[in-house]
Amino acid sequence: MAMDQKVNISVSLYLDTAGNLSKEIDSASKANCSSVTVPIVHWNYNREFVREPLRSKHGPFTRSDLLLSSTQWLNRVICRIGDNLDLDSPVDHIQRQAERTIRQEMSFGEHLVQNGYLYTKLSSTNCANFARTVGCTMFKGTLLVEVPITNPKLTQHGWRRDVAEDADATVESPWSWWNTFRCHADYNPTVKVALELTADVPKQEEIFRWLGEPVDAIVLPANIFLTNAKNYPVLSKAHQSMLNLFYRTFSCHFILKANPSDGHLAHYVDYIKYTIQHNYVKNPLHGYEDLLQIPLQPLYDNLDSFTYEVFEKDPVKYIYYQNAIEQALLDRVPEADRATATTIIMVVGGGRGPLVRAALNASQTTNCKVKVYVIEKNPNAIVTLTAHINELWRDRNVELISTDMREFNPPEKADILVSELLGSFGDNELSPECLDGAQKHLKDSGISIPCKSTSYINPCFGSKVYNQVRLLERSPHWKDRVISSRHMEQAYVAYQKNAYHIDNPQPLFEFVHPNRESDDPIDNNRYKTVRFRAALDCVMNGFTGYFDTVLYKDITLSIHPFTHTKGLASWFSMFIPLTDPVQLRKGDEITVHFWRCVASHKVWYEWSLSAPVVTHVHNIDGRGHPIWQ
Amino acid sequence: MAMDQKVNISVSLYLDTAGNLSKEIDSASKANCSSVTVPIVHWNYNREFVREPLRSKHGPFTRSDLLLSSTQWLNRVICRIGDNLDLDSPVDHIQRQAERTIRQEMSFGEHLVQNGYLYTKLSSTNCANFARTVGCTMFKGTLLVEVPITNPKLTQHGWRRDVAEDADATVESPWSWWNTFRCHADYNPTVKVALELTADVPKQEEIFRWLGEPVDAIVLPANIFLTNAKNYPVLSKAHQSMLNLFYRTFSCHFILKANPSDGHLAHYVDYIKYTIQHNYVKNPLHGYEDLLQIPLQPLYDNLDSFTYEVFEKDPVKYIYYQNAIEQALLDRVPEADRATATTIIMVVGGGRGPLVRAALNASQTTNCKVKVYVIEKNPNAIVTLTAHINELWRDRNVELISTDMREFNPPEKADILVSELLGSFGDNELSPECLDGAQKHLKDSGISIPCKSTSYINPCFGSKVYNQVRLLERSPHWKDRVISSRHMEQAYVAYQKNAYHIDNPQPLFEFVHPNRESDDPIDNNRYKTVRFRAALDCVMNGFTGYFDTVLYKDITLSIHPFTHTKGLASWFSMFIPLTDPVQLRKGDEITVHFWRCVASHKVWYEWSLSAPVVTHVHNIDGRGHPIWQ
Repeated sequence: MAMDQKVNISVSLYLDTAGNLSKEIDSASKANCSSVTVPIVHWNYNREFVREPLRSKHGPFTRSDLLLSSTQWLNRVICRIGDNLDLDSPVDHIQRQAERTIRQEMSFGEHLVQNGYLYTKLSSTNCANFARTVGCTMFKGTLLVEVPITNPKLTQHGWRRDVAEDADATVESPWSWWNTFRCHADYNPTVKVALELTADVPKQEEIFRWLGEPVDAIVLPANIFLTNAKNYPVLSKAHQSMLNLFYRTFSCHFILKANPSDGHLAHYVDYIKYTIQHNYVKNPLHGYEDLLQIPLQPLYDNLDSFTYEVFEKDPVKYIYYQNAIEQALLDRVPEADRATATTIIMVVGGGRGPLVRAALNASQTTNCKVKVYVIEKNPNAIVTLTAHINELWRDRNVELISTDMREFNPPEKADILVSELLGSFGDNELSPECLDGAQKHLKDSGISIPCKSTSYINPCFGSKVYNQVRLLERSPHWKDRVISSRHMEQAYVAYQKNAYHIDNPQPLFEFVHPNRESDDPIDNNRYKTVRFRAALDCVMNGFTGYFDTVLYKDITLSIHPFTHTKGLASWFSMFIPLTDPVQLRKGDEITVHFWRCVASHKVWYEWSLSAPVVTHVHNIDGRGHPIWQ
Repeated sequence: MAMDQKVNISVSLYLDTAGNLSKEIDSASKANCSSVTVPIVHWNYNREFVREPLRSKHGPFTRSDLLLSSTQWLNRVICRIGDNLDLDSPVDHIQRQAERTIRQEMSFGEHLVQNGYLYTKLSSTNCANFARTVGCTMFKGTLLVEVPITNPKLTQHGWRRDVAEDADATVESPWSWWNTFRCHADYNPTVKVALELTADVPKQEEIFRWLGEPVDAIVLPANIFLTNAKNYPVLSKAHQSMLNLFYRTFSCHFILKANPSDGHLAHYVDYIKYTIQHNYVKNPLHGYEDLLQIPLQPLYDNLDSFTYEVFEKDPVKYIYYQNAIEQALLDRVPEADRATATTIIMVVGGGRGPLVRAALNASQTTNCKVKVYVIEKNPNAIVTLTAHINELWRDRNVELISTDMREFNPPEKADILVSELLGSFGDNELSPECLDGAQKHLKDSGISIPCKSTSYINPCFGSKVYNQVRLLERSPHWKDRVISSRHMEQAYVAYQKNAYHIDNPQPLFEFVHPNRESDDPIDNNRYKTVRFRAALDCVMNGFTGYFDTVLYKDITLSIHPFTHTKGLASWFSMFIPLTDPVQLRKGDEITVHFWRCVASHKVWYEWSLSAPVVTHVHNIDGRGHPIWQ
C-alpha cells in the first residue's frame, strides 16, 4: 500500500443544469473537481425542427462559446447531449425532432470541445437509431455513454411487493444495452463507457464482463455513499473494491453525481481520491498495457542488441535455468566423478551469452567440470560472444560455433542441450523445428533443458486490442469499413489488461524434447479441438494464449495465469483475434479448432469455431501470419 | 410445354470403381452419359503416409495420366476424391493419414482435370478439418460436394421399430452439414453442391432452402426410380417436380448412380433428359440470372441511347401509362368540353419520348384536346425529342423544355404531371426529390401519374449474388480475405434466381405525389423497422427489394412477387447485402431497421439488424452507395 506513489485522479462534477457556467466551474474547483459535466443546451432553449412556425424561429439555441476560452471548454467541461431525448420513439415526429435536436447538439459540442469529451446516456436495448445517429458518426474526441452497472428495475423490485421473486432473472442487464449500441456503432473506437455504479453491486462475473469494455469513466452517484461515524461520506467495501478494480484496469476518470449545494461535496471527492491512492500499487509493466506487438521471428530475423538487453534483464528467468542445469549436473554426475568427468553442455541459440553464464555458474556451484559449446547463428551476437570468451570466460572451457543449429556437425555429442527458443505461445518461435534438428547432437541418455512446452488458450474479449487491430487497416477512403485477413488473421503479443476472460485456459499443443518416442518421422503438425463455456451473455473477439515449460523435473517457467512464475517478465501473453466478434449466450459451448501447420519454409497456425457459430478458417495457408523457418 | 425448345442436358455415370477407364467411358457413352464419375485412386493402391516402412515405399499411387488425353480428362471424367476417408476422426493417426491421402488426391486431381470437376462426399457436421483441407484451398476448377437431400437416418427409422416416432424431428438436416462446411470454407465460390435426391421427398420449405445454395449437380440414385407398366424406370410426380424446379433454378448437371451392368442404363438417362426437356419453358430473361448490376442514377448521369432503347421496349409499361392518362382525362374533362378544353399535360423526364407518345395516344383515344410540355435535362435526349417534334408530332401541340424539372419555371400550370422516375426500389432514383420540385407546376386540383410508390423488402439468401459481391473486392495480395464497405454496403439490381426467400415481403417506404398533406416542409427522410420470421434454420445474406406504384386509381405497376404486373420487364428486383451472412434458427424473429437519408447533395439508405443478432449500421453516411442529387 504505497501512499508515496502519487497518481493523478480527476473527478468531474455532474450538474443537472448549469445557469452560470464560469461560476459552476469555480465552485466545482473549490470542491477539488477538475471539471463539470453539464448539458450543452439548457432546457429553456427548447427548439423545434419539424413543425412551423417555431421551426423558422431564428436565434441562438444555447449559451455562446465565448463564455469560456477554448482550453476551458476542452479541460473544464464535459458537454452532455441528448438529455431527455428519445431517438427510438415509435412516434414519428418525436423521433424526428429528437434526431434533429441531438445532431445540433453534437455539432455544437464538437465545435466547443474539439478532441475533448461529449457525454450521453443509454437506457434501453431499443437504441438502433440512437446508436446510428450518435455512435456511428466519426468524432475527433471521445463520446462517453453512461450505462448503469445494474438495471434500475432491480432496485425498484426491491421496494415492490407485487413483483415475483424470480422477476429479477428476466430483467435485462444494462451491459446488453451497451452491447447492442456498440454493435450498431461497429465498435467505433471513439465511443467509450461511463459506467455508473449503483447501490446494488452486481455478481462478480458481471463485474468482470465490464473489464473487456472501453470504460473511460466511473460515475458515482451520491446515494451509493454511506455516512461514517464522523458523518463523512464513505463507500462500502464492495464498492471500494469495484472502484479499485476499475481504476487498475482502466486508469479511468470519475464523475460525481451529487447535489452541488451539498456542504460535503469536497469530502466525496477527497474520499474517492484517497481510496484510489491508498490502494494504488505501481505496476512495473505500466505503459505496455494492451499494446499490440508483432511476435518476434528470431529464426528468420536476427535480433538486435536492444531486444537481447530486454531479455537479459529478466530478474528470474536465468536463475531458473541455472537451477535446472545444476540439478541436471548433480543427477548426471556421481559425486565421486565431479572433479574429473567433464559434462558436455551445448547451448543452442546462445544470443549474447546469458545461458552460457547460467551453465558456468551451475558448474561452479556444483563443482562439476563442464565444457560448453555455444551455437549461435546471428553474426551480430557472435561479436559479443567472442568478446566474452576472450575476456570474461578466458579461463573457462567455452567453444563458440557460428552456425544454424539445424545444420551443425558437432565434434562430440552433448550430455545437456540448453535452449531458450520459446515464445509467448510456446512453440511459436519454432523451438520444435530447431530442437528436432539439434537433438541429433545429444547423447541417447542426454537431457534437454527445457524438456517440454505446452501452449494454452482461453476465449476472451478485449476492446483495446481489437480496436488496434481494426485501426491497422488503412483504407484509401478513410470512411470505408475494411476487414482483411492481413491484420485480423495474425497473432499478436500483448499485455492484456482491458480483457474479459470468458473461461479458464485449456492446454493446446505439447512438445517434448528430445522427441524420440516413436520410430516414425517427427511430425510437428498438430490439430486439436478444445471446448469452453460462457458463464454469461458476452462477446468474444479472440483468444488469449499462454505457455508453460518444464526446464528440468519440477523446475518450470509459466505465464499461464494460474501458475505464473513470480517475477517472470520476458513474456506477455498472445492475442489471437477472430475476424468478427462472436456474440455468446449464457451457457453456450464454444468449440474451437486449432491447427499448427508445417510446410517446407514456414509454420503457421489456423483457427476456427464450430460452435456456437461456425466461422471461416482463419489464417488459411498462413496468409495473414506465416512464421518463416 | 415446348418440346421444340432444345436444351443440352448432361448426365454423368457414377461408378463405385473403374478398372479400365477408357472402356468405362465408352460404355457410359453408349448409355448416353457424357462422362463418368470415378474415384481418382483405386483402393488397390492404398497408401501409407504416417507409418514406416510402407511410408517410404515408392511407386505410383494410381493409374497414369497418359491413359486419356487432357480434353478427355477434362470433359469425360469427374474425379472423386476422399472416398472412405475420415479427416475428422478422433483417432490421431487415422486423421493424419486421411488428410495426407486426400491432399495427394486433390493435387493429382488438379493435375488431371485442370479447371474441370473434382467430387467428394459430405456426411456429417463434424467436418472442420475436412472443410479446411479441401474446402479452403483455392482450386482452378469446381469442387462438387455430395450432400443427400434427406438424412439417411430418416429412411433407416422407417424400417426400424425400436425408433420412437418423434425421433425424426431431432435428426440433423444434411443442409446443416453443408452449411457448416461452407462456413468453415468461407463461402469459397469454387465449392458447389452435388445434391443427391433420396426416396423420401423433404418438406417444400426444405426444398426451397436449397434454392439459394450453389447447387451445380443433382445426383439420382437408381433406387429412387419406380418401374412403369412397360418395365421402364420413371420418377414419381414429386421427384419429377423437384427435378424440374432445380433445373429451372440452376441449369444443373445430373449424375446417375446405377449399376453399370444394368441393361436399363440408357433408359434412366433418356428418362431424365425427357423429363427436363418436356417441362422446359424458355425464359425471355435467360442470361440475366443473378447478374449484379449497379443501379442507374439517371438524375446524376445522362442515360445513353442503349438504355433508353431497352426501356422503350417494355411490352406493357407504356400501355399502362396510356391507360392511366386516358382514365385521368376522362375523369377530369366533362364530356361536353372535350372538343374545346385543352388539358395541360407535363411530362417530367421525357427521355426519348415514350410518355409523350402515351399522352398523345390517350388524347386521341379519348378525343380530349391536350397540350404536352415535355421537360428533359439530358441534352442527348433533347436531340431525339426535337426530331420527334419536327417530324412525328408536327401537327400536335407539344412543347419541349430543356431543363432540370426542379429548376424550371413553366408558362402555365399543369393538369396532369406524368413521370417515370421509379427505380427497382421505388424511390431509389430520387423520384420524391424530383417530384417535390416539380409539383409546384401542378394545379391545386392537378393529378400526378404516378400518385404513389411503395418499396418492399424480404430477407433472402443467394450464393451467386453474394459471391459476386465478394469477388468485386480485389486485394493486392490475391490470397487475402477482404471485406469492405465499398462493395458490401451497396444496393444492386439483380434478377435473382439462385435465392431462398426467407419470409414474405413487407412494405418499407411510401411516397405520395403530389405531397401536400401537411403544412410542414416536405421531409423525405424515412426510418422504419420491419420484422420477419425464419421458418427453418437458414442463412441470410441480404434483402431482396421490390416496389409497386399506383399510376392512377386502380391502374398499377408492380414487381412485388405476389402482384407482379404480367409481362413487365423494365425492372429487376434489388439485392441489398449484409457484410456478414447471418445464421438464423427456426422461429427466429428478424428485426430490420431501414433508413432513407437525405442531405444537400445526396440521398442514401442505411440498414441494420437488431435481432436475432445486432449488426453494424450499413452504408453509414452513404459511404458505400451514395445516390447523387
